[in-house]
Amino acid sequence: MGSEGAPRIEVDGVLSAVAASGLDVVLVGDEPRLRQALGESGPGAPLERIQIRHAPDTVGMDEAPAIAFKHKKASSLRVCFDLAKAGEVDAVVSAGNSGALMAGALIVLGRLGQVERPAIATTFPTRAGQCVLLDMGANVDLRPSALAQFGVLGATYTRLQHKKARPRVGILSNGTEEQKGTVLTREAARLLGRVTAGENPSEFEFLGYVEGRDIFKGTADVVITDGFTGNVLLKGCEGLVEWIGEAVKEEVMRGSILEKLGAWLMRPALRRFKHRTDYAETGGAPLIGIDGVVIVCHGGSDARAIKNAVLTAGEYATIDLRAEIKRSMDAHAYLWSDAAPPAPEEA
Amino acid sequence: MGSEGAPRIEVDGVLSAVAASGLDVVLVGDEPRLRQALGESGPGAPLERIQIRHAPDTVGMDEAPAIAFKHKKASSLRVCFDLAKAGEVDAVVSAGNSGALMAGALIVLGRLGQVERPAIATTFPTRAGQCVLLDMGANVDLRPSALAQFGVLGATYTRLQHKKARPRVGILSNGTEEQKGTVLTREAARLLGRVTAGENPSEFEFLGYVEGRDIFKGTADVVITDGFTGNVLLKGCEGLVEWIGEAVKEEVMRGSILEKLGAWLMRPALRRFKHRTDYAETGGAPLIGIDGVVIVCHGGSDARAIKNAVLTAGEYATIDLRAEIKRSMDAHAYLWSDAAPPAPEEA
Repeated sequence: MGSEGAPRIEVDGVLSAVAASGLDVVLVGDEPRLRQALGESGPGAPLERIQIRHAPDTVGMDEAPAIAFKHKKASSLRVCFDLAKAGEVDAVVSAGNSGALMAGALIVLGRLGQVERPAIATTFPTRAGQCVLLDMGANVDLRPSALAQFGVLGATYTRLQHKKARPRVGILSNGTEEQKGTVLTREAARLLGRVTAGENPSEFEFLGYVEGRDIFKGTADVVITDGFTGNVLLKGCEGLVEWIGEAVKEEVMRGSILEKLGAWLMRPALRRFKHRTDYAETGGAPLIGIDGVVIVCHGGSDARAIKNAVLTAGEYATIDLRAEIKRSMDAHAYLWSDAAPPAPEEA
Repeated sequence: MGSEGAPRIEVDGVLSAVAASGLDVVLVGDEPRLRQALGESGPGAPLERIQIRHAPDTVGMDEAPAIAFKHKKASSLRVCFDLAKAGEVDAVVSAGNSGALMAGALIVLGRLGQVERPAIATTFPTRAGQCVLLDMGANVDLRPSALAQFGVLGATYTRLQHKKARPRVGILSNGTEEQKGTVLTREAARLLGRVTAGENPSEFEFLGYVEGRDIFKGTADVVITDGFTGNVLLKGCEGLVEWIGEAVKEEVMRGSILEKLGAWLMRPALRRFKHRTDYAETGGAPLIGIDGVVIVCHGGSDARAIKNAVLTAGEYATIDLRAEIKRSMDAHAYLWSDAAPPAPEEA
């Protein structure tokens, strides 16, 4: 019930996902509205693999996440997480209030092992392929240890999801020099800087600070930041891409007939480019560091985005990201505790 | 001596600026290198309006700004500010270490009246014209009162520079709802929220929180943020624009001959678009809130960017931005002090 076009968008997306995969889906929300949306989808829909679980309430965008989540036991979000906790579903997908999603994940599913704060990981397209940026909005006002942990979370995710053997991890800052950054980033950089190199290499390489432009340059595989900065940057980039599209169109419209013809001829290339940047292609961003699979979708998702998010959720439910995160967090515990780094292994 | 192509870039930019205006310019830096660069510029250069002031030292990008500035009395940056303080020049333009520029402005020129922290104001192109974003990197780890003051600084600058009668000011946040943001933004929002409306309207309208995408939508005329977030966002946007240009070119190159023809025909429209987004067109961003005119240029500036920055500096030296900032800061002092808001004027 979370997207701006709910529940139509969610139902359409789920129908496509079920048709394209072997997944079974439980739709959680207002049953009459869900039945109506399903009915409108026409005949031929694979309804035998779609269940409905009634949840009359919703958590709004303007509600205090944790309070709403705790009190609204019949909200679609709450019922979803209860199903996940009970093992009735393997993953939760939602385009709703991301703060409430975070609260729900923490309250019902809980954190994985040593994880202080879970994070939303978004994959950006870059010159070199892709860059995983986290956190994209789940956490503001972090402690340095939590930011340092994002490095381990992001590296583990990137190793499994993007098949990078030893991801390069950078902390987002206002300059690459050590004295730049905030109190938060400087302390997180000090913690991650203790990562063992040489004889006993870590599972990731720590680059120190990277700048905003490095995300698109492919300098790093993983860029970590607090959820405030990450969210501002993500939405700023979205707004910029929209504006560039409009402004170029404007310039073409005020141009000569040849420029208009040129734009028309170029359409296939622009479509291929759009395909590369379209968030609907990946559909959602995982919330990592919690004991469950949760995919956070954009509030403005369309049916294609929901479809892809459901497929992603199905995929994540099969790879063992959770066990690997737990193991890697334990192996790197010396970074944020006062423990000594692990001794080099004997030859 | 500050840009990546110094001093060639600076000298070429200054020659163009002097040729295009009635300005006199003092080049500050290593005299032999400046003389050589000037000599290479060929005959016909208006050398009678260009002076050289020798400064053998420079402040590097990796030096601690305030310390370097204090100790390197013969650095080009220090000599520049000393000239400004002595009234021998009306404005300082530099593409050097922005932290050192900030330190220099604070130490030598000083702050204007009540200003806690000066800010670098960058103008972004938007759907509705332009949006002034500050601070773009001069300040990290701000106090809420300093962030609230950026609202007054930005509004005053926008009234004078962009001729907006009553600018709309927003605080950059990770969501528009009141409970979003950080401890810093929430307190700054509370302070600015006290701005008097109705019978005794302020010189600006406070919108509360805006998101990253609002910058390009034209929702606000002024968007305020700490220098860390502003810098990350600015550089992220620069990197994204570069990457989009490259990625579209790539798609065209792998496309059909017709797509390539289309791209070729469309070039004039793309050039017009580029002109709208090119930072070299404005050339530099003013550091506002200090008792002087300082224009901060991008380290990667070309000669056109320097030329435009010098012209901008000449313009700012004539408009009375400083007096107006001082007056407006006094008029809004109730926002960050515990004083009561001004009473509505008697009819």
